[in-house]
Amino acid sequence: MPASSPSGSFPASAPQRQAAAGRLTRVRAHSLALAAPLTAEDQCIQSMPDASPTKWHLAHTSWFFEVVVLQAHAPGYRLFDPKLLHLFNSYYESLGSRHPRPQRGLLSRPSLDEVLAYRAHVDEAVARFLADCDEDRWREVADLVELGCQHEQQHQELILTDILHAFSCNPLLPACQPAARGLRLATPPRPLHWVAFEGGKAAVGHGGAGFAFDNEQPRHDVLLRPYALADRLVNCGEWLQFMEEGGYRDPSLWLSDGWAQVQAQGWRAPGYWIEPGDARAPSPQWQVFGLHGLAPLDPQAPVMHLSFYEAAAYAQWAGARLPTEFEWEAACGHPGLEQMSGHAWQWTRSSYDPYPGFQPLAGAVGEYNGKFMVGQIVLRGGSHATPEGHARPTYRNFFPPAARWQFTGLRLAKEVSC
Amino acid sequence: MPASSPSGSFPASAPQRQAAAGRLTRVRAHSLALAAPLTAEDQCIQSMPDASPTKWHLAHTSWFFEVVVLQAHAPGYRLFDPKLLHLFNSYYESLGSRHPRPQRGLLSRPSLDEVLAYRAHVDEAVARFLADCDEDRWREVADLVELGCQHEQQHQELILTDILHAFSCNPLLPACQPAARGLRLATPPRPLHWVAFEGGKAAVGHGGAGFAFDNEQPRHDVLLRPYALADRLVNCGEWLQFMEEGGYRDPSLWLSDGWAQVQAQGWRAPGYWIEPGDARAPSPQWQVFGLHGLAPLDPQAPVMHLSFYEAAAYAQWAGARLPTEFEWEAACGHPGLEQMSGHAWQWTRSSYDPYPGFQPLAGAVGEYNGKFMVGQIVLRGGSHATPEGHARPTYRNFFPPAARWQFTGLRLAKEVSC
Amino acid sequence: MPASSPSGSFPASAPQRQAAAGRLTRVRAHSLALAAPLTAEDQCIQSMPDASPTKWHLAHTSWFFEVVVLQAHAPGYRLFDPKLLHLFNSYYESLGSRHPRPQRGLLSRPSLDEVLAYRAHVDEAVARFLADCDEDRWREVADLVELGCQHEQQHQELILTDILHAFSCNPLLPACQPAARGLRLATPPRPLHWVAFEGGKAAVGHGGAGFAFDNEQPRHDVLLRPYALADRLVNCGEWLQFMEEGGYRDPSLWLSDGWAQVQAQGWRAPGYWIEPGDARAPSPQWQVFGLHGLAPLDPQAPVMHLSFYEAAAYAQWAGARLPTEFEWEAACGHPGLEQMSGHAWQWTRSSYDPYPGFQPLAGAVGEYNGKFMVGQIVLRGGSHATPEGHARPTYRNFFPPAARWQFTGLRLAKEVSC
Amino acid sequence: MPASSPSGSFPASAPQRQAAAGRLTRVRAHSLALAAPLTAEDQCIQSMPDASPTKWHLAHTSWFFEVVVLQAHAPGYRLFDPKLLHLFNSYYESLGSRHPRPQRGLLSRPSLDEVLAYRAHVDEAVARFLADCDEDRWREVADLVELGCQHEQQHQELILTDILHAFSCNPLLPACQPAARGLRLATPPRPLHWVAFEGGKAAVGHGGAGFAFDNEQPRHDVLLRPYALADRLVNCGEWLQFMEEGGYRDPSLWLSDGWAQVQAQGWRAPGYWIEPGDARAPSPQWQVFGLHGLAPLDPQAPVMHLSFYEAAAYAQWAGARLPTEFEWEAACGHPGLEQMSGHAWQWTRSSYDPYPGFQPLAGAVGEYNGKFMVGQIVLRGGSHATPEGHARPTYRNFFPPAARWQFTGLRLAKEVSC
Repeated sequence: MPASSPSGSFPASAPQRQAAAGRLTRVRAHSLALAAPLTAEDQCIQSMPDASPTKWHLAHTSWFFEVVVLQAHAPGYRLFDPKLLHLFNSYYESLGSRHPRPQRGLLSRPSLDEVLAYRAHVDEAVARFLADCDEDRWREVADLVELGCQHEQQHQELILTDILHAFSCNPLLPACQPAARGLRLATPPRPLHWVAFEGGKAAVGHGGAGFAFDNEQPRHDVLLRPYALADRLVNCGEWLQFMEEGGYRDPSLWLSDGWAQVQAQGWRAPGYWIEPGDARAPSPQWQVFGLHGLAPLDPQAPVMHLSFYEAAAYAQWAGARLPTEFEWEAACGHPGLEQMSGHAWQWTRSSYDPYPGFQPLAGAVGEYNGKFMVGQIVLRGGSHATPEGHARPTYRNFFPPAARWQFTGLRLAKEVSC
Repeated sequence: MPASSPSGSFPASAPQRQAAAGRLTRVRAHSLALAAPLTAEDQCIQSMPDASPTKWHLAHTSWFFEVVVLQAHAPGYRLFDPKLLHLFNSYYESLGSRHPRPQRGLLSRPSLDEVLAYRAHVDEAVARFLADCDEDRWREVADLVELGCQHEQQHQELILTDILHAFSCNPLLPACQPAARGLRLATPPRPLHWVAFEGGKAAVGHGGAGFAFDNEQPRHDVLLRPYALADRLVNCGEWLQFMEEGGYRDPSLWLSDGWAQVQAQGWRAPGYWIEPGDARAPSPQWQVFGLHGLAPLDPQAPVMHLSFYEAAAYAQWAGARLPTEFEWEAACGHPGLEQMSGHAWQWTRSSYDPYPGFQPLAGAVGEYNGKFMVGQIVLRGGSHATPEGHARPTYRNFFPPAARWQFTGLRLAKEVSC
Repeated sequence: MPASSPSGSFPASAPQRQAAAGRLTRVRAHSLALAAPLTAEDQCIQSMPDASPTKWHLAHTSWFFEVVVLQAHAPGYRLFDPKLLHLFNSYYESLGSRHPRPQRGLLSRPSLDEVLAYRAHVDEAVARFLADCDEDRWREVADLVELGCQHEQQHQELILTDILHAFSCNPLLPACQPAARGLRLATPPRPLHWVAFEGGKAAVGHGGAGFAFDNEQPRHDVLLRPYALADRLVNCGEWLQFMEEGGYRDPSLWLSDGWAQVQAQGWRAPGYWIEPGDARAPSPQWQVFGLHGLAPLDPQAPVMHLSFYEAAAYAQWAGARLPTEFEWEAACGHPGLEQMSGHAWQWTRSSYDPYPGFQPLAGAVGEYNGKFMVGQIVLRGGSHATPEGHARPTYRNFFPPAARWQFTGLRLAKEVSC
Repeated sequence: MPASSPSGSFPASAPQRQAAAGRLTRVRAHSLALAAPLTAEDQCIQSMPDASPTKWHLAHTSWFFEVVVLQAHAPGYRLFDPKLLHLFNSYYESLGSRHPRPQRGLLSRPSLDEVLAYRAHVDEAVARFLADCDEDRWREVADLVELGCQHEQQHQELILTDILHAFSCNPLLPACQPAARGLRLATPPRPLHWVAFEGGKAAVGHGGAGFAFDNEQPRHDVLLRPYALADRLVNCGEWLQFMEEGGYRDPSLWLSDGWAQVQAQGWRAPGYWIEPGDARAPSPQWQVFGLHGLAPLDPQAPVMHLSFYEAAAYAQWAGARLPTEFEWEAACGHPGLEQMSGHAWQWTRSSYDPYPGFQPLAGAVGEYNGKFMVGQIVLRGGSHATPEGHARPTYRNFFPPAARWQFTGLRLAKEVSC
């Protein structure tokens, strides 16, 4: 049983624990809200190995709290069902065996109802634990509870990207979300402008208070040459022009691996763009499939569902380049820059390497970020699907260069003479 | 609207049409009964390209009646939803485009409820059509309605084989059917005996009245040498002995392609046999996963879930061989032979070639059987999952030699001197 | 040392042994003659897993005599080099380990010179053995020596088919053989005629004296319906018409597996047909790449390098069918039939199943044929590349239905009313 | 015809052109020297898509001079054979079509003799051109001729790595080079020591005179934290200890992609290490296959044929890390560091990203480096197979993280407190 605080003494951490419990409730509820428009069948399917079923996300985020917080720190905690440990471990080698990732979509059992009961069980246990735990326990778990919330927020975005991919494979092209949920896609009507920066020494990475992932640390200085950033993201109208001028047919614009992908995958447009005349939804115009279903292409909306290769090819075609992650971070906050977050993740020209002095977290959660630091590209910013308050200027998102199912766009950069 | 019979004359086909309607109702209801123990999530999943979701089977068998009977022959029939034609066509090139087979498991929409509504719509329309149609229409469709029923019965067996495969991929190893549903697996306790046949000229294939598929025709004579058949199927106890004596490790027993599969797939036991100590269901004994879930291996039960390669290797090991499909058919009905049907499909030593003079059915249903006549092996008999009354002695089932997810076993044959 | 015959008695087998030695010399010399126009580099390359380098064929056929005849039966025989046993075993599980088939083209060592020395060593040892062996030994090996010659003749055809495939992958499209070597491709100018046969009981398979493979035995009776065969092979002009009338675009003509191959492989013409305008050898006409290099398509030449699937689709298009192997064999020898052998192997509509009562040879050579009796189609006749005297009317060649690199064509058959 | 210098004026570039011609002769001769121990058959084979046949390297390096120097700049130059352009283009999209890379090993034609004639033709034409060209031409081509020499030197190392891989696939394990060619593998006997560096601002990249590739430029400043480097490379004895302590079995040491490779490829030791008891060369000890054939493992020799993943796992196991490319470069030249070049390429912890302000070369040679700047890891130093004088401290070699067929090892780094 969780230790209670000694009678007669006021537990100093009580307000913090209460705040954590409140935040936890809100974060956990948001996951359910995202899943609410989906049927049990919808929540069961998996359209590719990189994506997971909604139900699996709901269960895995509960597994995280169960294993990382409750099993490790809450005395007497009883597992909801020991068989779930194997099913809902994602990639933690130190936390036991795992169901093969490409087969997550075969888990019709446990049913959605059972998964929801699993969530409720875990929520209740964490709440009770937070209410009752003593100061030592609290010190042990405070960061882990926040990590669990941040982890869940990451999966909230994945719930959307993954169901969008799954629905894109259904010829009926259903909508993932009711139309009422307004997205923040309004785009400034004015033409692109460049904002220049002097460069020089800049401090990057997370160094102060507040939550940050280990991969954002330690804060350190870098040297930047003078550069300029576009004041907004590249939009769909500009991308159409790239396509019409042969962007997908000219190898000189592409990185070698990118050109190989263009040919192997037959890319001729961003992900989820539906060609005029497509049998699933005949139209004389390009359409774009998104969370709300099909819509006519909006030339002013930021282009999304790009691979890094496409972003880099576009920059080449535009006589520009992609910003490095440090150029992006150093510029962040400049009032002339729009759409820095809340629209689309922005591919940078930075491979996802460790920061100087990087140390993974201790214990199992050390597998969270560090072991993926090869073969991936850093994205900065945040998308319209990123939960409110989740991203920050030092945030390093990362995906392999061929990935297109995330909400990924680009902002141009260029050299300037000092 | 369907033409009604001229007033004042008694429609000669009325009793036949009524009988067809009754049969249709019973067959269609059985599909739903098979699906009843499964949740909507269960019915949505697909575990490999060769298998299909339960829901897809329920929809496809309805599509067959809709397209082959109603759309082609019922004047004024309104499609339930034109978009379903693409989704639920299986392999009929002449009947339009098709959703890719490996992606049937992504169809969370239409929902199970919608599919059930589709079934009801089609059932009602066929019933009305049968009640009202005139003599000419009836002559057109009588065989197609029966073909639709036979087709649905084939999918009833597939509903079971496919969900069994899907559930075998779930570490929870759930049961597909309630335990009460008794299977006809009782096995004669006595040792195997040989029943000898003289051979000579034998007539094979379907020639008389009653339904048969085109691939069973025309009836024709073949010449057989003297031979003997085992009076029962090979059972699990005998198979264990084959395993213990190194059957899966001795290439001299195997066809070349079979040995390649043993190595590539790591086969060491029949499909769905669970090794002692398996983490999913620890036990000191072999267990077998079946429609009712996990059970201890029953040495007297016919062995099932064998590939043709395994069946042939066992026969080689036993100093025997597999019967040809004609030996099997000519012997069928001999009172000394048990388990000829209702237990497991029996691999023969006959490739699935056309009979002399074979003619596919006219029209789209000509694609039903003929275009698969290469690369497959004939199975005879019928399994415990074959619907009552569906199989017959001339019935030619067929699967590729590596297939193991069907209820497939073997009966030995051997040469005898005349 | 081999035992010599007792002095003073005349060895009865001497003339037979001398004849065998002479035949061996001629057969072995022919292999070298086929390889003579090729450089050491040419003889080293392998263009796909199913094909082998010329040098490997030269070595493997020597390995066969070394292991099957000398090592097993010649007392005191010293292996040329024990390391070669692993390198040049093809598929005999009972004869030890093997170099992986797809990597035969990496064997730049042993060099061609060493392989030729290996051949000479084996030739000399077999010759000495045949000269000296006693009657018992001779009885042991007589059939094996002949099998070795037949085996070598099969590889002689493969030497040609395999180098032709390899050269077809070289954009220079070099010729495999000097132009002077005339092929027997002249085609009767008259239109195709049908030759009718009554059917009834026919004896098939090899039953008399003379060499035959185990797969041609035992001789047995089959029942045939009346049928007709085309008096010649389908020619290139007819095939062009099939192509022009959309043969490669109409799924209704194709077996299901065949249509899948057409789409996966992009087949639009037989193997080695070079499209008008091809960058490697621009021409306004179709050209055909063959052993002598590139030549304009000859409309009267038998079409070759077809898969079974293509042959079957053509027959469907022509309103005919392929003959069964027994129809072909029963008709063989009829004076009205031309091009039965010496032009192209002829796909039949018979899967390669064992004959009733089939027994593989005893010992390692039992792996020669029997273990391949699944998933293959029988071809009859013989091609212009088949060594003189090698084929016979009962000969059963076999390849998988998708194979196109052999000299494979087709002859039409059809039903006739009795 | 090449323009001659105006009579009566002394061509200022004559000494430079003469020096270039001399260097060219020496570089080109070295390629032939490396190929000399190999037969024509050896030079024809290709063991994987990433490797090329020796003959292809000899031809491609000539193609480079022919296309980049002669065809573009030497008036009147006649191609040796226009068909070779397609065959020997490697990856230059702007220079026309290319023979598919995985099929380079099928080019038995042109023969080695023809390729040598091609080399001679090109050598003679470049020599004549250098002797005769005027000042303007010289200014055009001077850098390209040097680039051609550097390019050829890179292929000289690849000639060795690629034939080593090919020979490693031959069970005879032949030697690529005569034993007399001494390699610089002697290792300091003393234990590993750390050399500490203060960090701070460091200038990296090529900035001065002399040749450098575009990817080494521009020279720029970076900020380094204090760090230490090992004074020598990790050696085979240390690697054995890593293996014996379970290095290849402990996922916690590995990057996620690396662990996936360990399992998929079955890695248990570095490339070319031959396990005790291996059937190809039985021995109770580990052996290592190298350019001179098989040798007992030398514990003091630098370990080679590591993937980046293995290098990173070892560093993790050793409680250290890999140096960044800039740490390596800033430390280069320190007298306490041994084996910085001439032994093995050293994996760094730096992805191969463009330097700030990177500009590819103009024209076709702009494809040389820039288009590969994704998905690769930087290696520094140089191996025993790197041609004398080719590498330099700013040199950036790069390979994908899974590559093991290069001469790739590692040097440890670690943090130090300031």
